[in-house]
Amino acid sequence: MDCENIYLDYAAATPMDARVFKVMQPYFSDKFYNPSSPYSPAVSVRRSYEEAKLSLAVSIGAKIGEIIITAGATESINLAFSCIKGHVIVPNIEHHSVLASAKIHNSTIVRADERGFVSAETIKSAIKPETQLVSVALANNELGTIQPIRDIAEIIKKERNLRLTKGNKTPIYFHCDASQGVCQLDVNVARLGVDMLTLNAGKIYGPKQVGLLWVASHVRLEPQIVGGGQEYGLRSGTENVAGAVGFAKALKLVSERRKYESDRLRKLRDNLQQALQNSFKNAMVSGHKKHRLAGHLHISFPGLDGERIIFLLENRGVLVATGSACADNNGTRSHVLMAIGLTEAEADGSIRISLGRLSNKENTEQAGKILVEEIEREYKRVGK
Amino acid sequence: MDCENIYLDYAAATPMDARVFKVMQPYFSDKFYNPSSPYSPAVSVRRSYEEAKLSLAVSIGAKIGEIIITAGATESINLAFSCIKGHVIVPNIEHHSVLASAKIHNSTIVRADERGFVSAETIKSAIKPETQLVSVALANNELGTIQPIRDIAEIIKKERNLRLTKGNKTPIYFHCDASQGVCQLDVNVARLGVDMLTLNAGKIYGPKQVGLLWVASHVRLEPQIVGGGQEYGLRSGTENVAGAVGFAKALKLVSERRKYESDRLRKLRDNLQQALQNSFKNAMVSGHKKHRLAGHLHISFPGLDGERIIFLLENRGVLVATGSACADNNGTRSHVLMAIGLTEAEADGSIRISLGRLSNKENTEQAGKILVEEIEREYKRVGK
Repeated sequence: MDCENIYLDYAAATPMDARVFKVMQPYFSDKFYNPSSPYSPAVSVRRSYEEAKLSLAVSIGAKIGEIIITAGATESINLAFSCIKGHVIVPNIEHHSVLASAKIHNSTIVRADERGFVSAETIKSAIKPETQLVSVALANNELGTIQPIRDIAEIIKKERNLRLTKGNKTPIYFHCDASQGVCQLDVNVARLGVDMLTLNAGKIYGPKQVGLLWVASHVRLEPQIVGGGQEYGLRSGTENVAGAVGFAKALKLVSERRKYESDRLRKLRDNLQQALQNSFKNAMVSGHKKHRLAGHLHISFPGLDGERIIFLLENRGVLVATGSACADNNGTRSHVLMAIGLTEAEADGSIRISLGRLSNKENTEQAGKILVEEIEREYKRVGK
Repeated sequence: MDCENIYLDYAAATPMDARVFKVMQPYFSDKFYNPSSPYSPAVSVRRSYEEAKLSLAVSIGAKIGEIIITAGATESINLAFSCIKGHVIVPNIEHHSVLASAKIHNSTIVRADERGFVSAETIKSAIKPETQLVSVALANNELGTIQPIRDIAEIIKKERNLRLTKGNKTPIYFHCDASQGVCQLDVNVARLGVDMLTLNAGKIYGPKQVGLLWVASHVRLEPQIVGGGQEYGLRSGTENVAGAVGFAKALKLVSERRKYESDRLRKLRDNLQQALQNSFKNAMVSGHKKHRLAGHLHISFPGLDGERIIFLLENRGVLVATGSACADNNGTRSHVLMAIGLTEAEADGSIRISLGRLSNKENTEQAGKILVEEIEREYKRVGK
C-alpha cells in the first residue's frame, strides 16, 4: 500500500499481509507442479494443499473434508445456493451475490430493521414448510451490523426437529456469509450452528480470488463447475495451491489477533465517531449501536453528496467509500440504505469508513481532522 | 522449479515466468485496491485490469468487451456450455471438463480416429437441426493431436447459413478449448472461425486459477455465477487484477516466441522420439504424425506398467506423466487412449512426455538416455 494515503476502506479490500505473500511465493515458482501429477514433487505440492485446507478447517472448527476452495465469496455463495431447488429466505440487506442467488429461486426477502439487524423472529416468521435454505451474512458489509447467527440457527434447528416429527422430509439449511467480520468475530461453525459458511481470503489480508465454502457433511451439494472432479467432485479445476496456502496463513493470523485487533479498532472507531458527531450534530450513524463490527463506521451527512465527499477526502489523502464496491453499485443508491429506511438525502450523504490493520491512533485522528474540515467546508458551500 | 529434476510434464503445469511474476507482484501489495472502489488509486487498478484484458484481446485478435476472466479453463468451459439448452456435439477424447459439461445436455459424443483426430466430416455427420453447440479442443492434452478447427468452423458456418434459408432459428455455436497448444499455435479467433474460445494462464507460464472465455458478440451467455455484476454481469466476483495482468503478460510472451519455440521443441521432441524408437522396436507413438503439438510425445511400451516407469524415472530425476493430471484420473485408464483404440497393454504401458521452455538439447538427451536405460531394465525384469 502506498504510504501517502490513509486507507479507510478495509471492508472493500485488504492489503496482503507480507507473511501471507511469503508462504505463497514458492507455489508461484519452484512448487508450480500440478497437485494431481504423480511424481513426488507434485505429491508434496498436493500435501501442502491438503495441509492448507486442514489449517483452514481447524481455524473454523471444521473437518478438512468439509472445505471446498473456490475463487471467492461470490462463487461460494452461488455454490451454497446450488444445493437446493426449493424456497429460500434472505434479508433485504444482503450482498448482491446473495440477493442475485436468491432471485433464481422461489424466495422470501425479509426486512432488516432500521439498524440493519435481522432478528431470529423475523426469520422464523418467514419459514414455510417448503423452505430449504436461509442465508444471512455474519455482518453487513455496509453498516457493520452483526447478525444473531446463533439465534437464527436455533430457530432452524427447531424447524428441522418439527419437520422430523411431522414427517416432512424437506431439508432446511442455514448458510452464513462470514466474509465480513471474520477478522473481528469468532467464526466457529459448531458454535455458530450453521450448515454452510462462506469465507473470502481477499477480505482478511490474504490473496484475492480465493474463498471457501464450508459444508457440513449432511448437506448434499450440487457441483456448479464440472470437470476433472477436484474438491470431491464439487468444484472442478486445477487446485489453487498458492491461494489455499495464503488463505490458510491469513486466516490463522487474523484468528490469533482477533481479540486484540477488535478492541484496538473499536477504540479508534469510537473516537473517530465521537469527533464527527461532536462537530456535526445532524450526522447520523447507521447500523446497530451494540452489535457492530469494531472497525466499521457508517455515517450520513444529510444534504451533502457522499460521492463528492469521497472525492474531496481523496484530494486530502483519505480513502473512504460510499458503500459496497461492486460493478452493480456504480451510480446507484445503496439497496442496503434504502432497505433500512434512510431518506434519499441521508443515503446520498453517506460514507462508509472501515478501519483495519494499518489504522492507528495517529492516522485515524488525522483522518478525522480532515473529515471535519472537508465536511464543514462542504456544508458552507451548499449553504447549510 | 528445482534444478535437480528434468521436468517433462509441461502439459500438466508450467512454471511461472519470472517476468510474469514481476508484473503481478504490485497487485499483491501496493495496488491491492478493489477495482470497483471510487478513489483514484483504485481507478488506476481498474485501468490496469482493463489494459490487461485489452492485451489479452489483442493477442487473440478479439475486442476487449468479448473477454471474460475466469478462474481457469474448467470454469470457462462450464460457462461456454451454460449459453445453450439444446443438443451439443463433443469428441470422445475431450478433457473431462468438456465431457462432463456435455453430459448435462442432450449430447452426441463423436469418435476421434486412431490418431486422436476429429475430422470436420465427423462433426458434420453428427449435426442435427437442434444442435446448438460444438466443442472441440485445439489440441488434445494427452496425444498432442491438433484438430482441424478452421475446417470444423466452416462446416458450422454452412449449417448456420442453411438454417437461415430454412427459417430454423436455432443458433449453433462453436467453442474451442485452446488451453493446450496456444504456446505453439496461432490462436486468432477470426482466423480460427470459432464463436467461443477458452484459454488457461496456468498452461502458458502464467498464474494458476486464471482463465478466460472469449465470446463473440453474437453469442448470448447465461451467467453461472451471479452477484455484483462484474464481467458484464456474466461472472460476478471481485476482479482478479493480479491474475489478469499476469495472464496478459504470459500470453504476450508466448505469442512473441511461438514460431521459434515451436521449431525448437519439435527438433528436441523428434530426436527424443527417434532415440526411443531406435532402442525399442515395439514402442508405439500415438497421436497424429503431422498435426501434433511440437513438444508432445505420447509413447507406449506394451507389456510395461506406465505408472512404474514414472516412478523409476522420477528416481533418476526425470518427471513425466501417464496422462492428464486430474483428480478423476487417479487409478483409472485414460479415456483418451481407450477412445483411440489402444489395447489395455498399450494403454497401461503409456507415458506422456511434454517439453517446454526449460527443455534444451542437453537435458532432453539426458532424459532420453535415462528413459532408454530404465525401460530396457524394465523389459528385462518382466522378461520381455
